[in-house]
Amino acid sequence: MIEKRKPLAVKEAINQILKFSIKGTSEYVSLQDSDGRYLAEDLIADHHVPPFDRSPYDGFAIRSVDTTEASSENPVEFEVIDEIGAGAVSNFTLRKNQAIRIMTGAQIPSGCDAIVMLELTKVYKKNEKMFMSIKRRFSSGDNISFKGEDTKKGTILVKKGTYITPGIIALLATFGYSKVAVGKKPKIGIIATGSELLEIDEPLVPGKIRNSNSYMIESQVKRCGAEPVFFGKLVDDLNTCYEAVKQALEEVDFLITTGGVSVGDYDYLPEIYQLLGANVLFNKVAMRPGSVTTVAEYNGKLLFGLSGNPSACYVGFELFVRPIVRTFLHSNYPHLQKTKAVLGKDFLKPNPFTRFVRGRMSFSDGTLIATPVGLDKSNVVTSLADANIFIVLPGGTRGYQAGDLVEILMIEDQIGSDIPWAESFK
Amino acid sequence: MIEKRKPLAVKEAINQILKFSIKGTSEYVSLQDSDGRYLAEDLIADHHVPPFDRSPYDGFAIRSVDTTEASSENPVEFEVIDEIGAGAVSNFTLRKNQAIRIMTGAQIPSGCDAIVMLELTKVYKKNEKMFMSIKRRFSSGDNISFKGEDTKKGTILVKKGTYITPGIIALLATFGYSKVAVGKKPKIGIIATGSELLEIDEPLVPGKIRNSNSYMIESQVKRCGAEPVFFGKLVDDLNTCYEAVKQALEEVDFLITTGGVSVGDYDYLPEIYQLLGANVLFNKVAMRPGSVTTVAEYNGKLLFGLSGNPSACYVGFELFVRPIVRTFLHSNYPHLQKTKAVLGKDFLKPNPFTRFVRGRMSFSDGTLIATPVGLDKSNVVTSLADANIFIVLPGGTRGYQAGDLVEILMIEDQIGSDIPWAESFK
Repeated sequence: MIEKRKPLAVKEAINQILKFSIKGTSEYVSLQDSDGRYLAEDLIADHHVPPFDRSPYDGFAIRSVDTTEASSENPVEFEVIDEIGAGAVSNFTLRKNQAIRIMTGAQIPSGCDAIVMLELTKVYKKNEKMFMSIKRRFSSGDNISFKGEDTKKGTILVKKGTYITPGIIALLATFGYSKVAVGKKPKIGIIATGSELLEIDEPLVPGKIRNSNSYMIESQVKRCGAEPVFFGKLVDDLNTCYEAVKQALEEVDFLITTGGVSVGDYDYLPEIYQLLGANVLFNKVAMRPGSVTTVAEYNGKLLFGLSGNPSACYVGFELFVRPIVRTFLHSNYPHLQKTKAVLGKDFLKPNPFTRFVRGRMSFSDGTLIATPVGLDKSNVVTSLADANIFIVLPGGTRGYQAGDLVEILMIEDQIGSDIPWAESFK
Repeated sequence: MIEKRKPLAVKEAINQILKFSIKGTSEYVSLQDSDGRYLAEDLIADHHVPPFDRSPYDGFAIRSVDTTEASSENPVEFEVIDEIGAGAVSNFTLRKNQAIRIMTGAQIPSGCDAIVMLELTKVYKKNEKMFMSIKRRFSSGDNISFKGEDTKKGTILVKKGTYITPGIIALLATFGYSKVAVGKKPKIGIIATGSELLEIDEPLVPGKIRNSNSYMIESQVKRCGAEPVFFGKLVDDLNTCYEAVKQALEEVDFLITTGGVSVGDYDYLPEIYQLLGANVLFNKVAMRPGSVTTVAEYNGKLLFGLSGNPSACYVGFELFVRPIVRTFLHSNYPHLQKTKAVLGKDFLKPNPFTRFVRGRMSFSDGTLIATPVGLDKSNVVTSLADANIFIVLPGGTRGYQAGDLVEILMIEDQIGSDIPWAESFK
């Protein structure tokens, strides 16, 4: 039974999916376990920065008024009455021509209104007492970092939904987040179907190939911030597949099947969707590769039927699954980052459909270059290994030449975009 | 006691460190646990790709010789004698005007030398038998993917030292790597020193700040592929610090201390190095921030004394620790990727030293833009959170204007470079 399918434009397909996109719940993890996760709450300053008036330099705390007469001809002498390291607080209040030795980050002592850097002073002992002298004037406030001048208490520093990097970890620590609210990872079920599939540790036999897609998808799931749950590799049998899909759906937030969605006779997915009573959003997309991608919705859960072809499967995941995962994680930038680049190599193959050509990004004197990988047969095998972008070539009959400006999608990027990139595509 | 220090050029500092750079051992992990690690062996094709002659389309396997007379006026009829799905092998050998229904990926049956795509045929039944007809000629070899045409068995597909992405996972699965040899993660000890440091869950008290650097470094350590081991936060006491450093060195491959390397009086690191008998490679670098970075070597192990200032600590890690980690992991690209970008904002501050300005990368019509973050006071706090590049401004008196072409280092990049970027800097 050969089913006729009506291809949907990429933009429409993504919009269909986004309608069922939901935000997940959050959970608390320790600060150390929060990197690589997505903030589920705004990061707010719990105190002023700096939290107190402090010294940005190693030097001496003085009263600026005592330097009024200072010049290179007339060094002014100060008695050093105390010294304070970072973390310590002086009990002294500065009086006329007194100084306190102060380290970087230490709190400005009482009476002080200027810091003199160590290298601008001359330090010496006299009668067992410590002195220093200065040869220039200082004004009130010189070299003091004032409480709250960098950030006021209560300021939102990083927005909810942001990917947590080492720099954000530093902020979380500074503001006392020993536990961090992060988006709970969605569980994504993976089922590989196809009687031709061998386990990875099985020797090859005629007609069969090893299952690679489910491992690749697991890795893509992790890369985009979700948790993979592998339900195994199934033979092409309607009942087996139906039971597996039904069971898996109860345990996960989204389900991915790979294989079994070709136009061939052994495609049981349409029947499975029918048996489930799932709502098929589309079963063909006007794009290459990945045209046979099918997406259905069942009780609010999305079922992604990705192609059994590795490249089509890879592209289908990044275009259709990733924005759903990032939305679930409260990301404000769930979409792939789209930008322009200069094509690094001819791509002369004309094509009526929008193409997602696997490519590699490089830079040359400030210009972004996008070079297709896998154009020749020998590179097809490694093209997924080399790719870090998709070059998006809109449908049309002409080919593209090196030097043309083309659109690219960045797939190894954690930043993403708040703009649905596909809006500008057919 | 104020120690005089002679600043080393950045290039020299990195070269000093690289002399003590070593490659780590490898370990086997399951394919599912290998992503985000670094290959410790070349990835080699264990079979031809395709592994057998196969059909790239759904259609019919035929003998091209039988289509010699076919035309739109003269459709040629074939009897369909068998059908083979992916993974199955037909027992039939094609004879005159026989065809076998074949699915994408299935092995070409005996006698067949061409595949006709399904959509070019007309399929019908006659006397309970299945037939199809074709209206054009086919040549021998048409639509057949021949064994080994993509990749020959034994080809090195991905080099040792490469970061494992989902695309590489797909290759590893295809070629039967159920266990993958990856670089063993170096253990990097972290010690935070400074009497001013509070725990992250402690309330602020006068003069003190929360320890943020050790958490930030832990996250940087993980990002660059190593395993952090935190040995705690120590007060500024020589004996405590010495014992902690000595103990930690026995348990790790590299040790990072943060804080305690300022030019202030409370810097015990020089004494600790002396007590250990460590070989101090340098204790000052001609750069901003991070000038007080100290690196020593003890029994072949590197000790990194990073600044207590968060920005200087962050920069010091990426410049000096990261290449050592990546080399340990057998990466062929251990260095930060350097490229040129257009400065997105004025940076008018003149500076005699090479500056590493925290910046953010963006794109505009194929041009790479580098915008400094944290130029104004209020952004200083969040500059580490926003930064994904360092803008490298060589020492000199002039400032830089928006539109100037500048060098940048990419710090969130997993690709890296085989060229030591600092070679071109003072």
